Amino acid sequence: MFPDHIRRLAASVLAEFEFAGYMLATAESCTGGLVAAALTDIPGSSAVVDRGFITYSNVAKSELLGVPPSLILTHGAVSAEVAVAMAVGALARSKADVTVAVTGVAGPGGGTETKPVGRVHIATAVRRGPAAHKEFTFPGDRTAIRLATVEAALERLHTSRPRTNLR
Amino acid sequence: MFPDHIRRLAASVLAEFEFAGYMLATAESCTGGLVAAALTDIPGSSAVVDRGFITYSNVAKSELLGVPPSLILTHGAVSAEVAVAMAVGALARSKADVTVAVTGVAGPGGGTETKPVGRVHIATAVRRGPAAHKEFTFPGDRTAIRLATVEAALERLHTSRPRTNLR
Repeated sequence: MFPDHIRRLAASVLAEFEFAGYMLATAESCTGGLVAAALTDIPGSSAVVDRGFITYSNVAKSELLGVPPSLILTHGAVSAEVAVAMAVGALARSKADVTVAVTGVAGPGGGTETKPVGRVHIATAVRRGPAAHKEFTFPGDRTAIRLATVEAALERLHTSRPRTNLR
Repeated sequence: MFPDHIRRLAASVLAEFEFAGYMLATAESCTGGLVAAALTDIPGSSAVVDRGFITYSNVAKSELLGVPPSLILTHGAVSAEVAVAMAVGALARSKADVTVAVTGVAGPGGGTETKPVGRVHIATAVRRGPAAHKEFTFPGDRTAIRLATVEAALERLHTSRPRTNLR
C-alpha cells in the first residue's frame, strides 16, 4: 500500500540501522502512526524498530513524551520547539538510539496565516548527540501532506543515522 | 493510500465515537501504527483519537502498556492474554473511553505450527466495561495481513462502540 519510493527508503533506513546495531523509535502527531507503519511494512523491521508514540492530542504529547504544556502553550503544538521536545522525550522513554518526531498541519482545517496547511516540523534526536530540526511546507491534500511527511521523516532518519558507537 | 473500504469504515467509526463524545486509543504490535494511521487519515479525527502506542518490541509492551513480562513469557506476545493486557493497559494510560489492541504474526518469518503467519489477536477494552477478544487467521502476504488486521480492528471498534455514558 505504500508507494515504492517510500518502501525503498524505509528498507534502506532499516538496513543501515541494522548494520550499525541501532534501534529507532518514532513520535508522531499529524502522521498518526504512518511513519512507523511504513517502517514496519518491511519484513525484519523488528530488529530495528523498538516502539512508537502516537501523540495526537496535546495532553498525550505531555503525558507520553514529557513535552511541557507551557512549551505547547507558548509555541503551539506545530513548532520546532515541540518537535524537538517530542524527539528528545521519545529518546528518554525508549530503548532507541535515534528517534524521529513529526508535528504539523495535515489539513484540510487547522491552518493559520503563520502556520498554513502543509507546515510540518520534523526533529531527530540521537543518543549522546545533538537534536536536529527542519521545517517543511508540503503542497497537496491531507493524504499527500502525510505521505510527504513520511518520506521526509525517513530521509531525516537516513541523514541522522549513527556513525559512531552510541552505546 | 488506504483502500476505500477501510477509509469508509474508519470514517464511520469516527462519526459514531464523535456523536457519542467518546475518545479512542490504539495499542499496536504487528500493524506498527497502521490502525491509528487509517483513523487519522480522516479529517477531523483529532476529535476522537487521543493517542496510540506502537509496542513493537516485547519490552515496549511491558514499559508502555504494563503488560507483565511473565504473561508474555507464558503465553507468547501473539496471544489472547497479551492482546487483552495491551487493550486494558492502553485504557489505563490514556484519556480514551475505548481502546483496541492488536498483536499478530505478519510474516513472512516468525510463524510456528501453533501460531502460523497470519494469526492475529485483537482485543478491545471499554471504560467501566468488559474487555473482549477475537482471534483471526488472515491469508496473504505481509501487506495483506496487515491491511486485513486494520479492517478487523476498525470493525471491532465499530462493534465495541459505547452505547451508554461511560464518563
